[in-house]
Amino acid sequence: MINKFREKKVISLNLPQFVEIVEVGPRDGLQNEAAFIPTEKKIGLIEALNNTGIKRMEATSFVHPVHVPQMKDSYEVFTNMNHEDHVQYMVLIPNEKGYERAIHAGANDFTLVAGASNEFNLKNVRITRDESMAQLENVIGRIKENRGYIRFDIATSFWCPFEGKVNEGIILGMVDQLEKWQVDEIVLCDTIGRATPKEVYQLFSKVLDKSPSAKIAAHFHDTYGFAQSNVLAALQAGVTVFDSSIGGLGGCPFAPGAAGNSSTEDLVMMLQEMDIDTGVDLNKLLQCVDLIKTMTQRELSGHLNKINHPINV
Amino acid sequence: MINKFREKKVISLNLPQFVEIVEVGPRDGLQNEAAFIPTEKKIGLIEALNNTGIKRMEATSFVHPVHVPQMKDSYEVFTNMNHEDHVQYMVLIPNEKGYERAIHAGANDFTLVAGASNEFNLKNVRITRDESMAQLENVIGRIKENRGYIRFDIATSFWCPFEGKVNEGIILGMVDQLEKWQVDEIVLCDTIGRATPKEVYQLFSKVLDKSPSAKIAAHFHDTYGFAQSNVLAALQAGVTVFDSSIGGLGGCPFAPGAAGNSSTEDLVMMLQEMDIDTGVDLNKLLQCVDLIKTMTQRELSGHLNKINHPINV
Repeated sequence: MINKFREKKVISLNLPQFVEIVEVGPRDGLQNEAAFIPTEKKIGLIEALNNTGIKRMEATSFVHPVHVPQMKDSYEVFTNMNHEDHVQYMVLIPNEKGYERAIHAGANDFTLVAGASNEFNLKNVRITRDESMAQLENVIGRIKENRGYIRFDIATSFWCPFEGKVNEGIILGMVDQLEKWQVDEIVLCDTIGRATPKEVYQLFSKVLDKSPSAKIAAHFHDTYGFAQSNVLAALQAGVTVFDSSIGGLGGCPFAPGAAGNSSTEDLVMMLQEMDIDTGVDLNKLLQCVDLIKTMTQRELSGHLNKINHPINV
Repeated sequence: MINKFREKKVISLNLPQFVEIVEVGPRDGLQNEAAFIPTEKKIGLIEALNNTGIKRMEATSFVHPVHVPQMKDSYEVFTNMNHEDHVQYMVLIPNEKGYERAIHAGANDFTLVAGASNEFNLKNVRITRDESMAQLENVIGRIKENRGYIRFDIATSFWCPFEGKVNEGIILGMVDQLEKWQVDEIVLCDTIGRATPKEVYQLFSKVLDKSPSAKIAAHFHDTYGFAQSNVLAALQAGVTVFDSSIGGLGGCPFAPGAAGNSSTEDLVMMLQEMDIDTGVDLNKLLQCVDLIKTMTQRELSGHLNKINHPINV
């Protein structure tokens, strides 16, 4: 049995030399905290992250404050935080209304989102997937007029908490559409953390086989403990941009059962120990984790934060 | 950047069709529980595992009862439990004394253990690695006379909690020695869960490149959340035998910082969803997890056991 598989053993893990981390903790992470986190603490976290070497961050989201009350202070956060030149601060917007509010706050780098699963999209933004895409086409046009940056999250790219397995044809079709609209970056999100490395490898391979102009990024959650193995599979498919959340914060308010995002510090440790450069300082990340512990007053879902001597051994 | 890596993208994940699970919960798992678990409950767990489709199990260990008091009833467990014909029940022994006790209980399938790291071996069994190997050579001779099965755990095959990174030359040398002694199976154990997929891929590749006669197995812990990614890397190196522990029980009493073993139910779910047959029934595994919850009265470290509708979505 062993010899049989040895014959077709891959000759290397095909790991890249550099990976880009997109920190989504201040947005995807904090939006799931039940207790409202004061604006100055949110800003404190963003500014602590500024010092870690992270170069890209989702800072906040302009979503309906009734539906996501944690993000009701997005204007205050975005206009009062220190914007470092070396960091790209993206804000998530689900629709044109969000876009209006975001540009009012001075944002120029946007994460747009639509669910591949129609049921999920209905729960998330109360319109169908096609309605979302039509609205966002307008928003994309307006962002491009202003030479803004467009990152597009395809939520539930693998599994939907309501519909089950999502047909990959839908994702490939959305990618084609987004390529026509010339977005800068497309993120395939495993919103509920249900995908396995095989699905991840296959879908990212198919998307990258299109030789897209857009950057292709991966966004995983650790619901079933598969986040890091999915990172490994995505690396092997050729992905070099990964979302993660400091402390493993996160989940999804409209996706029952979704656990925290892939933890930034666990991810950076794994990549670093595999000689993949992220440009991020792990010790400084752990200082951010301490900050989050005092903010959330709960046990975090990442691993490294639970270990006494996480790096030395 | 993306295109650069795409050029050398691996053409498939090289996944096997079948993987053998070795359930180590009753031994490596339970030995870490602080409160003594009554003998009949240990037997209850083994017998519940008998019904899951698991074909190989570490049932108990014959170690010094002062050093590992949880295993002091190994004789009672092994002689009173129901031995199913379709299941191989192994018992862990660290030395000749343990062997004597194990054969007295009727055992014929053995897991022997020595640490690749000398410091770890001293802490684990109070003799040097070389002393362990010399003692175990005698034990191996005696087991072979009785036509018993010999599984050999190389503890701290990657990292030692005391010495740090373990030189791979030590592992390769031990493997050569064990091949000479004709053991049936060699297990490379990441005792503290500190290895990354790159190290796992490289070491297993080197060991398998020797075309060993012994079966080669992998044993991971999930300390840093890397267990499943290490499974993926080992699969790609050609490994098809994996240790895991129901509920993610485990750790190591003599390895500070070691968290639970790779969780059997998480592992089986991942493999099953990647179309890799394990012969194990996931729903029956989850019944065993419920049993463990009542036995341990604590939160388990696996993931699947925390999810309300773990399989249907």
